Amino acid sequence: MPHIPLSPDLPGIRAAMAFRPETARPLNALVEILLRGPSTLTRGERELIATYVSSRNCTQYCHNIHGAIAAAHLGGNEMLVKQVKADFTQAEISPKLKALLFIAGKVQQDGKLVTAADVETARKAGATDLEIHDTVLIAAAFCMYNRYVDGLGTYQPDDPAFYRERGVRVARDGYVAVSEEYLAAHAPAGAAR
Amino acid sequence: MPHIPLSPDLPGIRAAMAFRPETARPLNALVEILLRGPSTLTRGERELIATYVSSRNCTQYCHNIHGAIAAAHLGGNEMLVKQVKADFTQAEISPKLKALLFIAGKVQQDGKLVTAADVETARKAGATDLEIHDTVLIAAAFCMYNRYVDGLGTYQPDDPAFYRERGVRVARDGYVAVSEEYLAAHAPAGAAR
Repeated sequence: MPHIPLSPDLPGIRAAMAFRPETARPLNALVEILLRGPSTLTRGERELIATYVSSRNCTQYCHNIHGAIAAAHLGGNEMLVKQVKADFTQAEISPKLKALLFIAGKVQQDGKLVTAADVETARKAGATDLEIHDTVLIAAAFCMYNRYVDGLGTYQPDDPAFYRERGVRVARDGYVAVSEEYLAAHAPAGAAR
Repeated sequence: MPHIPLSPDLPGIRAAMAFRPETARPLNALVEILLRGPSTLTRGERELIATYVSSRNCTQYCHNIHGAIAAAHLGGNEMLVKQVKADFTQAEISPKLKALLFIAGKVQQDGKLVTAADVETARKAGATDLEIHDTVLIAAAFCMYNRYVDGLGTYQPDDPAFYRERGVRVARDGYVAVSEEYLAAHAPAGAAR
């Protein structure tokens, strides 16, 4: 049950964004750049970082939707997404991505836990400064998105089919394009807030 | 010592933003709307929420700069800012702001800790749905900004005079205007990253 009157038709962050389109735009712009913009990390790798952090924060909507988007980018490999959530050290991913996920996991707890040695390990595995920067910011940003979705008590569906269908669309069209649809359809009545 | 090569002239989030102007713009747009945009919460109240969350995350740069901006909005009342950080329940602030700070403190830990009773208390103290929404998002957003600043190992000065001078400028001119100056002055050499 949401803590404020959110649209019952929209799950997770979409309801919160429809309630406050002014803040939805920078929130969408940020995730679009971080997870889909030009980068030497693949979109699948970046979605795995977002999924892993959301899973550690136990935010059902976010780890399911980003897991589904990751799988869509990874040729439908849902098993790999599950492995990354459960124990990424055993997953079939590159040593570089493992080192970046290790940093992301520390940022999820507290940014001060990241050490020079953690960063050196990532660099030795081939990570660039920009990849390290983006990993820290993706992890930090999902600590925001997760708290936003949970803190408002948004509706977070259980059905894997819901996330799978949506994941394919977001992977194809992007965050900004897909969200503009429901932002337009659910324009809030400012006075009622 | 920063984990990646950040400009030594810039402290805290400014160094991170100068390194990656593409993400700096939505990050600045978000904080500008949340802390300075039209709202029934005063700018001083919103800065106190940001300061309190940053203080709980022990991010020195953020709780000092936002504390200084809050004080600038509150007629230079640095003592009130100190009280909010130390124990807001005893500070001379409205019952509504106390109820919102209580919610913000829960979001700082985990959004799932916010209860219907917490929200009801805030509502009875006069908080609107939009104020509750914005409190949750300010608290969530500062969990991102704090982790970003700490996770990159940015330089975080000790000198209160530094924050006081800067706080007055940001309170007067805003986040976007002030940051555009150093984003222009420290344009990164993309290839070097």
